[in-house]
Amino acid sequence: MPNPHLPTALLASALLFALAPALSAQPALSSTPAKPRSMQQIIDESKPPDWRRIDPANTLVMELDAGRVVIELAPQIAPQHAENIRTLAREGFWNGLSINRSQDNFVVQWGDPAEDESKRKPLGSAKTKLPAEFERVRAKDAAFDVLPDADGWAPQVGFVEGFPAGRDPANGATWLAHCYGMVGAGRDIAADSSTGAELYVVTGQSPRQLDRNITTVGRVVEGIELLSTMPRGTGPLGFYEKREQRTPIRAIRLASELPERERPALEAMRTDTAAFTELVEARRNRRDDFYKRPAGHIDLCNVPLPVRVADAKTKGAK
Amino acid sequence: MPNPHLPTALLASALLFALAPALSAQPALSSTPAKPRSMQQIIDESKPPDWRRIDPANTLVMELDAGRVVIELAPQIAPQHAENIRTLAREGFWNGLSINRSQDNFVVQWGDPAEDESKRKPLGSAKTKLPAEFERVRAKDAAFDVLPDADGWAPQVGFVEGFPAGRDPANGATWLAHCYGMVGAGRDIAADSSTGAELYVVTGQSPRQLDRNITTVGRVVEGIELLSTMPRGTGPLGFYEKREQRTPIRAIRLASELPERERPALEAMRTDTAAFTELVEARRNRRDDFYKRPAGHIDLCNVPLPVRVADAKTKGAK
Repeated sequence: MPNPHLPTALLASALLFALAPALSAQPALSSTPAKPRSMQQIIDESKPPDWRRIDPANTLVMELDAGRVVIELAPQIAPQHAENIRTLAREGFWNGLSINRSQDNFVVQWGDPAEDESKRKPLGSAKTKLPAEFERVRAKDAAFDVLPDADGWAPQVGFVEGFPAGRDPANGATWLAHCYGMVGAGRDIAADSSTGAELYVVTGQSPRQLDRNITTVGRVVEGIELLSTMPRGTGPLGFYEKREQRTPIRAIRLASELPERERPALEAMRTDTAAFTELVEARRNRRDDFYKRPAGHIDLCNVPLPVRVADAKTKGAK
Repeated sequence: MPNPHLPTALLASALLFALAPALSAQPALSSTPAKPRSMQQIIDESKPPDWRRIDPANTLVMELDAGRVVIELAPQIAPQHAENIRTLAREGFWNGLSINRSQDNFVVQWGDPAEDESKRKPLGSAKTKLPAEFERVRAKDAAFDVLPDADGWAPQVGFVEGFPAGRDPANGATWLAHCYGMVGAGRDIAADSSTGAELYVVTGQSPRQLDRNITTVGRVVEGIELLSTMPRGTGPLGFYEKREQRTPIRAIRLASELPERERPALEAMRTDTAAFTELVEARRNRRDDFYKRPAGHIDLCNVPLPVRVADAKTKGAK
């Protein structure tokens, strides 16, 4: 089976003329402190408890002619939108719809291309009205894996079960951050006008000004490159002007409804482990020979969130 | 002539079902404070002194079969690399070379695809060794248009003649920031191993950890979408594995060497004006009806840097 698309930040970011990264020699003295592990070493040497299986009941699988895109939903923050999206997927709402917008350095968006409301596809059993779920007030002791680095947009940043998030410690309000690959629910002017039928993914510089202004519903965990390379639309906001420019969506299905052999079996690195903390530090201060000056800082949206194919042994039947 | 590619951030970022953004009614009372101008209004109502002509002697024009990419060089920070790049362009070094790498959420890179050093194209009159120009110590009174928003990567951020930059006020060290669209010079492990023959552009989340670690040479001001949509390479770091995957570069030329009718005539908004300060505030705190909570912050790499076709009247002969 094809390898899942690993987040590109997983690979060394060295910009080299040669295709092979240089390796530095390690001194043999036992009193020399070991060089900090690189991100790739941390991942390669990680243990099963450092990873969590992505739940198929929270996983959308989008089939395009070019391949598949896999999205993990975040019901912890937007439970009603997650449920509506599951319903829409179960009923095949998006099957035959299209990618309708690709705006450079911003988003790719998909759903019903019909401009005329009377021509729009009915939502089936899904709700036509949901509350805005821009943020969720969570208990002060609710799990939040803090990223200690300063952030200009939020009082505190970190991860909620693997999703990049902002938080207000004063009241526990928590929201997902619009990092690259994050998926949100398009809406009109009214705050409560999203249903999850119209979705977009961030494919450029993180538009963090959208945090707390729109319901975010999940993250692309595989296949983002199929969306990020979509030709840019020539209409306003990057909407496509001609029907033939809209890439058809063959289907969007819930992974739990797929036959097991078709189901993506992915795992994401947990964000509440010593391994992850070490990984973040390895990216905060790069110690490979390419970097001359470690940054001493990392932004929330620069933190890699590794995803890989789950261990074939634990998968069961192939 | 075709319109130059305006930065997409120039357009309203509203995510709507409908294609037409909603407009809110303005109350008629004269005592009501005027609604702050939107970015588009500021641009539409700007005056000629708010813009600066992009100097053709600092402008590269890359011709691909799909169209052209225009890059403004930044000799203020990397004068030796800028001069070497001008020499390479004048002598047609890149003509017939290719785009060799496209890594999702990171960079697109171009130059000589030959892996074997002995097969590399000679640099002609250009220098084969340049000093690293990662940053430049500038006089304390050198022009630097401060962006007052906190930044985790640099003690101070702002703009140097329109280029996003970091600065250390203690000693005047100034460097360009790796925002979307910024162009840098690929190098090997040695700090002084770039010549400008290998170039890359940022096409994903700003990799600010590269600031002060590599020589940045300029910014794409038109045509970024031709590069950001390049299919991702399947080799390590997004390098293409097969020759037929490498998009050919027909030519990279210096705009000042082109016949006037072929020369891009572009102007960029100045970053040292009241209009620009107002534009940044309009993006820092969005006041259109879509946004329910203005962010009160903006990151350096979220600040739009508008570019447009220069006034036909000032262009001279068409």
